[in-house]
Amino acid sequence: MSLIVVGSVAYDGVETPHGKVDRMLGGAATYISLAASYFTPVKIVAVVGNDFAQEDVDLLASRHIGLEGLERVADGKTFFWAGVYSADMNDRTTLRTDLNVFAGFDPKLPASYRAEPYLFLGNIQPGLQRSVRGQMGQVRLTGGDTMNYWINDFRAELLETIKQWDFLLINDSEARMLSGEPNIRRAAARILTMGPKILVIKRGEFGAILFHGDRHFMAPGYLLEKVFDPTGAGDCFAGGFIGYLAGRKIAEVDFADLRRAVIYGSVMGSFCCERFGVDRFRTLTREEIEVRYREFQDCTGF
Amino acid sequence: MSLIVVGSVAYDGVETPHGKVDRMLGGAATYISLAASYFTPVKIVAVVGNDFAQEDVDLLASRHIGLEGLERVADGKTFFWAGVYSADMNDRTTLRTDLNVFAGFDPKLPASYRAEPYLFLGNIQPGLQRSVRGQMGQVRLTGGDTMNYWINDFRAELLETIKQWDFLLINDSEARMLSGEPNIRRAAARILTMGPKILVIKRGEFGAILFHGDRHFMAPGYLLEKVFDPTGAGDCFAGGFIGYLAGRKIAEVDFADLRRAVIYGSVMGSFCCERFGVDRFRTLTREEIEVRYREFQDCTGF
Repeated sequence: MSLIVVGSVAYDGVETPHGKVDRMLGGAATYISLAASYFTPVKIVAVVGNDFAQEDVDLLASRHIGLEGLERVADGKTFFWAGVYSADMNDRTTLRTDLNVFAGFDPKLPASYRAEPYLFLGNIQPGLQRSVRGQMGQVRLTGGDTMNYWINDFRAELLETIKQWDFLLINDSEARMLSGEPNIRRAAARILTMGPKILVIKRGEFGAILFHGDRHFMAPGYLLEKVFDPTGAGDCFAGGFIGYLAGRKIAEVDFADLRRAVIYGSVMGSFCCERFGVDRFRTLTREEIEVRYREFQDCTGF
Repeated sequence: MSLIVVGSVAYDGVETPHGKVDRMLGGAATYISLAASYFTPVKIVAVVGNDFAQEDVDLLASRHIGLEGLERVADGKTFFWAGVYSADMNDRTTLRTDLNVFAGFDPKLPASYRAEPYLFLGNIQPGLQRSVRGQMGQVRLTGGDTMNYWINDFRAELLETIKQWDFLLINDSEARMLSGEPNIRRAAARILTMGPKILVIKRGEFGAILFHGDRHFMAPGYLLEKVFDPTGAGDCFAGGFIGYLAGRKIAEVDFADLRRAVIYGSVMGSFCCERFGVDRFRTLTREEIEVRYREFQDCTGF
């Protein structure tokens, strides 16, 4: 009963007001898988180059993430991204994007992955997301992420893709763009007619809103005393969300499960920001996660 | 057992994407008083000119707001402000500010006000706020609002003033400016050493955070399907917050009371945005307030 995670595995160069790292493990699938691995077995589908370091393989393996679907291209380099954050870390500027082997990514699921019940499709070309879904059998929960580029320039293909999804996780500006509706509540109502029955709109430091049927649930962002590096926080949110649901191993999730999944998403996103890159996941324990979950209860209940 | 509210009563010209009103009742003390009046008796301290309309007096009186402290200047005009909101209503541009009689506002409390136990000092010159506090006897809860102008240009006087306050309500950029600390959690910790034991940081559509001792509570903003006019929403939040606490009539408020007060603040702020200016308060009932309070419980509990 594993969760399949498809997306980018990369090296990142990141500069924030708290420091600078020239090259470290990154990529959406990396963050999603690491965060989800605290709740459920995970199997990754991604591509890397000949420069992908053994220590990074070891980190993923230490979290029991299945790597059979991690394709290695012998004559290529791993996707590289570099960016710098603004003083308040709410904006970032991309300095470099070398797609490298990711440009030719054509995800092929190992046979052992195809009967798994949970699928998270990270932010890649919508046609590829659909292809992956097609390689799977019956799936209990399928969903994923997308971005402004696919919404604007691959709209028809994206709509065709998310039609098959149970859930969609996007940020507020993407929700406005996808729906053509500036009001978030009405944007959500429109998106819920496009296929996904579960919509999570991420609002960065302000948390997230879950929409399901005609109900919604609002989770705040955790108030960190120090944000070291927000890179990957949204992906860790996604990993906590789907990881928790997959870990429940139930046939049908209800609104109470979904609420808790959103809180676990916020918890995992908050831990991500406490260190550079994936560093927090080298030491994070499930017990720390539960402590923070209870902190969320304490600071939202009335 | 009344709440004294000190601040501006004004006429506003407002343009939002949903319409334009050239002149309507406004002002911080107006919004605070109207919102608070659903929970507790209110007495206002403000100044208006000879143009202040009987229908506006009647509206305040219909909410049982005491008007003995509403000074009328026979040869002056009421404070007038006009502004236009951006398409997403998160920014506004001031088109006109005629202080008129408000420029000479020197609040004098009627004798009948001086023994009341609750005092809310709206955003006026900090020296005037302190003068009002000095005119009162023993007060159970004193606090109020301020703004960037006083924080920057009247810092010493403001610090002297809030030293005497039990609570302070400001927005996030004001909290950063007052504390000199960009991180909100650390900004709050620093402000709690300046006098107020209770701090509420308002975050507009993203809700508010309450800080008290080493605990905090986060309330989301209500998800409106249509925001007609956000003018006065922050003041209505303040009115709901202090109005609820005053209405409790208890000697010492605890953290549970404060959490509920923040939710009532969010409730009142949300109603304010549903119509232009103060219009929503012409029909709003306490029952509608309770329904929305329960909606907050439903969309935040997990």
